[in-house]
Amino acid sequence: MSKELAYSIGSTFPPLTPGIVRLYSMRFCPYSHRVRLVLAEKNIPHEIVNINPKKRPEWYSDIHPAGLIPCLQFDDGRIVYESVITTEYLDAVYAEKKLISSDPYERARQQMLVDSFQRIVALLFKALKFKDPEAFNEICKVLDHYEKVLSDTFFGGKDVGFTDLMIWPWFERIRSLKSLLNNELDKERFPKLTTWIKNMTLLDSVKKTSVRQDHLIVFTKQSTTSAEPDYDIGLEKPKEEEPAPAEEPQSNPE
Amino acid sequence: MSKELAYSIGSTFPPLTPGIVRLYSMRFCPYSHRVRLVLAEKNIPHEIVNINPKKRPEWYSDIHPAGLIPCLQFDDGRIVYESVITTEYLDAVYAEKKLISSDPYERARQQMLVDSFQRIVALLFKALKFKDPEAFNEICKVLDHYEKVLSDTFFGGKDVGFTDLMIWPWFERIRSLKSLLNNELDKERFPKLTTWIKNMTLLDSVKKTSVRQDHLIVFTKQSTTSAEPDYDIGLEKPKEEEPAPAEEPQSNPE
Repeated sequence: MSKELAYSIGSTFPPLTPGIVRLYSMRFCPYSHRVRLVLAEKNIPHEIVNINPKKRPEWYSDIHPAGLIPCLQFDDGRIVYESVITTEYLDAVYAEKKLISSDPYERARQQMLVDSFQRIVALLFKALKFKDPEAFNEICKVLDHYEKVLSDTFFGGKDVGFTDLMIWPWFERIRSLKSLLNNELDKERFPKLTTWIKNMTLLDSVKKTSVRQDHLIVFTKQSTTSAEPDYDIGLEKPKEEEPAPAEEPQSNPE
Repeated sequence: MSKELAYSIGSTFPPLTPGIVRLYSMRFCPYSHRVRLVLAEKNIPHEIVNINPKKRPEWYSDIHPAGLIPCLQFDDGRIVYESVITTEYLDAVYAEKKLISSDPYERARQQMLVDSFQRIVALLFKALKFKDPEAFNEICKVLDHYEKVLSDTFFGGKDVGFTDLMIWPWFERIRSLKSLLNNELDKERFPKLTTWIKNMTLLDSVKKTSVRQDHLIVFTKQSTTSAEPDYDIGLEKPKEEEPAPAEEPQSNPE
């Protein structure tokens, strides 16, 4: 049975592994994807525990006060959540391959680019949920700014950095617009972004953490039409329809 | 005529003063209030230019891409916006009186407290706009967590720090609930927060940047019922109803 199956109501807390950082995640969540990218890029030994956000395990409320993902848990009890805070924390503690510039203005410039990207997050949701073609036009208008400021291989220079990893998850999702909205980024309008996308797909961290497009498309369709999408699309599931990886199966599942 | 009057459509760009940081602000905006607190707490020489967010000056779009406030402008062309990013930037550059811990976990802990406070921001808006008493109960539930984690004079220890200044503007606004919703924080439920509020009001930076409660209450009433609240409440206004501090008055104001 796949270890990626989402933990759900009725499951048992999986004990921590000493020396290993644990990421509470959801396979299709772009914010979790940010942290998975950072863990992969910095080669931080970690394990992933997927959570069903609609049927959160009871034990998860002891870990994150509002029950959100992503969230990191360390074997000494430290908890860090919110994707940007988590990234800054990991970058400070695992300092070998720095993602964030130590220059305060360059750091602020990168943070502002990541913060402004929230407009695209909202517009992409609108485009996908309401099949709104105007939202796609708005996304392109915001992306004009990113096309303009991109002046090197990556947003921070020759090496992949903070901005690249923080905005990448949505570019994997923008790709799904081709299938869902019959729309895609115009290579002539976005020549630099088109090259940047190609550079990103060549990175090991991007390859390792990539969400399969066919699964993502099915999930996006489900999550924009159903209150209970399948968080385990494409995984081998337990035979009985009991709550996912409960280690002590209930004798009387509902 | 007061220098605090909000710049509006038709106004002329006020030239920068060499060596002085400029904050684009709005008198009643809690996010701008955060930055005003930081500038005051760190004794950074600065000037404030208020902006009418509903009738933004044409020249402001050259400064902030999305036209939002608060935003800092330096005389060498640097622009920094978004209140938390701005605070972190100022704390890194004006490093004499540090507000943010250099310990990565303590820094993350403070950032998480600030981030979680966004729930109160949304709830306070609901309470004030929709006169929703349930929203006030929800605010108290979130504040229970802050009551629990407050273990010293301030959220970061003996001295005022990042979390205190980032959340304070909403406590000034929660006070207005007493007048607007006939509701206030229960001193028995929140003994530590009650003392913290008292400690905060004793700070010079809080005194200097405080918004007058009577003005705030009128503004809150207006902004929750009208699309065009008066951003210049309590200020001496120009005699003619022309756009606020336009340095070259139009010959034919509408």
